Amino acid sequence: MSAQCYPTPRSRWSHVASQPVSDIIPLILKVAATPEVISFAGGLPSPEGFPIAQLAHACQSVLDRDGKRALQYSAIKGEKELREEIARRETQKGIPTDAEEVQIVSGSQQALDLIARLFLNPGDKVLVESPTYMGALQAFDLCQPKYAELDCDQEGLNPAAFGQECRNAKFAYVIPTCANPTGLTISSERRELLAQKAREFDFWIVEDDPYGEIWYTHEPPPSMRAFAAERTIRLGTLSKILTPGFRLGYIIAPKEVLNKVLQLKGAMDLHTCTFTQLVAAQVFSENILDEHLPAIRARYKKHADAMLAALEEFMPDGIQWTRPIGGMFIWVTVPAHVNMTELLPLALEQKVAYVPSEPFYANAPQFNHFRLSFVTVGPETIREGVKRLGELLKAHI
Amino acid sequence: MSAQCYPTPRSRWSHVASQPVSDIIPLILKVAATPEVISFAGGLPSPEGFPIAQLAHACQSVLDRDGKRALQYSAIKGEKELREEIARRETQKGIPTDAEEVQIVSGSQQALDLIARLFLNPGDKVLVESPTYMGALQAFDLCQPKYAELDCDQEGLNPAAFGQECRNAKFAYVIPTCANPTGLTISSERRELLAQKAREFDFWIVEDDPYGEIWYTHEPPPSMRAFAAERTIRLGTLSKILTPGFRLGYIIAPKEVLNKVLQLKGAMDLHTCTFTQLVAAQVFSENILDEHLPAIRARYKKHADAMLAALEEFMPDGIQWTRPIGGMFIWVTVPAHVNMTELLPLALEQKVAYVPSEPFYANAPQFNHFRLSFVTVGPETIREGVKRLGELLKAHI
Repeated sequence: MSAQCYPTPRSRWSHVASQPVSDIIPLILKVAATPEVISFAGGLPSPEGFPIAQLAHACQSVLDRDGKRALQYSAIKGEKELREEIARRETQKGIPTDAEEVQIVSGSQQALDLIARLFLNPGDKVLVESPTYMGALQAFDLCQPKYAELDCDQEGLNPAAFGQECRNAKFAYVIPTCANPTGLTISSERRELLAQKAREFDFWIVEDDPYGEIWYTHEPPPSMRAFAAERTIRLGTLSKILTPGFRLGYIIAPKEVLNKVLQLKGAMDLHTCTFTQLVAAQVFSENILDEHLPAIRARYKKHADAMLAALEEFMPDGIQWTRPIGGMFIWVTVPAHVNMTELLPLALEQKVAYVPSEPFYANAPQFNHFRLSFVTVGPETIREGVKRLGELLKAHI
Repeated sequence: MSAQCYPTPRSRWSHVASQPVSDIIPLILKVAATPEVISFAGGLPSPEGFPIAQLAHACQSVLDRDGKRALQYSAIKGEKELREEIARRETQKGIPTDAEEVQIVSGSQQALDLIARLFLNPGDKVLVESPTYMGALQAFDLCQPKYAELDCDQEGLNPAAFGQECRNAKFAYVIPTCANPTGLTISSERRELLAQKAREFDFWIVEDDPYGEIWYTHEPPPSMRAFAAERTIRLGTLSKILTPGFRLGYIIAPKEVLNKVLQLKGAMDLHTCTFTQLVAAQVFSENILDEHLPAIRARYKKHADAMLAALEEFMPDGIQWTRPIGGMFIWVTVPAHVNMTELLPLALEQKVAYVPSEPFYANAPQFNHFRLSFVTVGPETIREGVKRLGELLKAHI
């Protein structure tokens, strides 16, 4: 029983588990969580927007009505009520969708892992935006692909410039609407062109759309399903419109993809939490989002406006930033010789945090950008934080 | 916009997604779900045992007290309150455990997937019992290992007979207590011997323990952590003691394993549902399980007794079965020439369902056993179902 005196086994991790891991993000999040730091580094939605009372009511009503079912194992595909509500919302947005086309997953991060495992052998090619969502790169990395970076300009992904790099790619991972990290939304014309290029080079389009309903100036163009339904794998999430704490996401895709997804998902975690699926379905069916979404949009717009005004007021010449129509992020570009990873410790000394651009690149990183999130910090504090950043940059350009 | 006229991409699935999948289990579950079929095929806990009112109360109290936190993103490792409660229960069972040694996962199926990805490259060796839990094989299969089957006898896993097949294995996957599918529990002596063999051949022990608290005759021997803490990766779940609908499981392991787990888990699904973690922690902290667990044990014992009595009454000569001290399953062995996969359609005609032994083997399947679950069917119906099976077997031996 004196196990303490034995050594652990010689560690023989898999190739996947042996890959080096960037520690930049955990480090930033840790420092940014210090109370006195004004953090624009997070990617969290504002907790002020959570409909707590409505969710409490829905929990009670699901357990009263359907307790035994809500607490039991469930189907791999997900609860029918929630799939129907998601299909109804997609249909309302203009793309007729059936509940059978919807697979529930444990947050859209799981969808990224799942899709990667569905398509990728080590060395297979994935097309990504440049920059792109670092969480997607982390999920894909578990399958050890190689990346080709797609041309992007000041309007976001630029399919007109796509060429030979698209050959033999398994899929393109894109965030066409209010992208993370840039905040950019591509036009209908670019979406149509992306569909054409996907057909020409025969790749799947993995459309990640966490922010599509969080627009605040005008509604974005339709999903890639409107342009290339036959090759679009659409990922959605309830994290930004309801609550991230439930870990509910979904995949909408052609049947042949969903059949394979079902097979992997069952082996990966059997199914997603039954209870939170039914609670979310209940909240959706009561049309709570009809009031809730406009409130989130109004709140986020106020924050975005405050940040844009502060950038205008405090940023020195030679600095540019995006003007998102929605979502949670603004992307700031500084002169090429400025390294925002190196500046971060100085910013933290001034009690302000951002995410430097470095981890958002699949291949060669760029250092002269940074991402600002504006949703969890109040407008007054936003102004103070941007002021500190402006002063820092003035001193170092 | 007329996407319908385009073909989907040429499908180029990964090797993992191209593996053939057994359809025997979905088929059985589908047929067994027909209302008039007496199904001993499921692996679900009895919904009669779910503490619905207590959970409803806990949902309300968590949202009242801590709503913004319960609905927000959370830490990869899991909520501290729940990790503390789990550590407290492990400590009560005799093995001092700190909350830092606990990683929360989305059901222990996810733990199986995670551990496989942590250790296995294609072709790596995994040691498994024969028979073993088919869900584990499905998870491991995603990493394309090769399996070596460990010697098992009528008392379960038999480490005395372990030999050269253990060389160069990454880990042994074992269910020492009330195993799925056999219901067998190995003795303290065999646990000690398993620890010795693991040291001799230098492999990790992955101890899956979903049923350890569902004993009904006497308490089982302690966890493998009592015998080989330095090389045991212990998997637990709330599915059988509280609710499977929450999808909450955990991993207790040496620090070097937990560090790697954290890295993979973050890329796989960021973290497990915040809300259900806090609700479960609340229920645990109110000591609800102190009353709840004895009630489950008493209910399951009644069912097990009914099934054992019915087997005694109705099974023809030449048939043997296990007598579990807990858990949910009895394993029945028929003469070697009888094929229980082939008999299944006849059983379904008689409106009774079981799981044939075939899918529980990693390598060469055996056909002359079947698994009976006794927890979701009432004692009277158990008697009728076993009677039908007895008649069927009399006619075919």
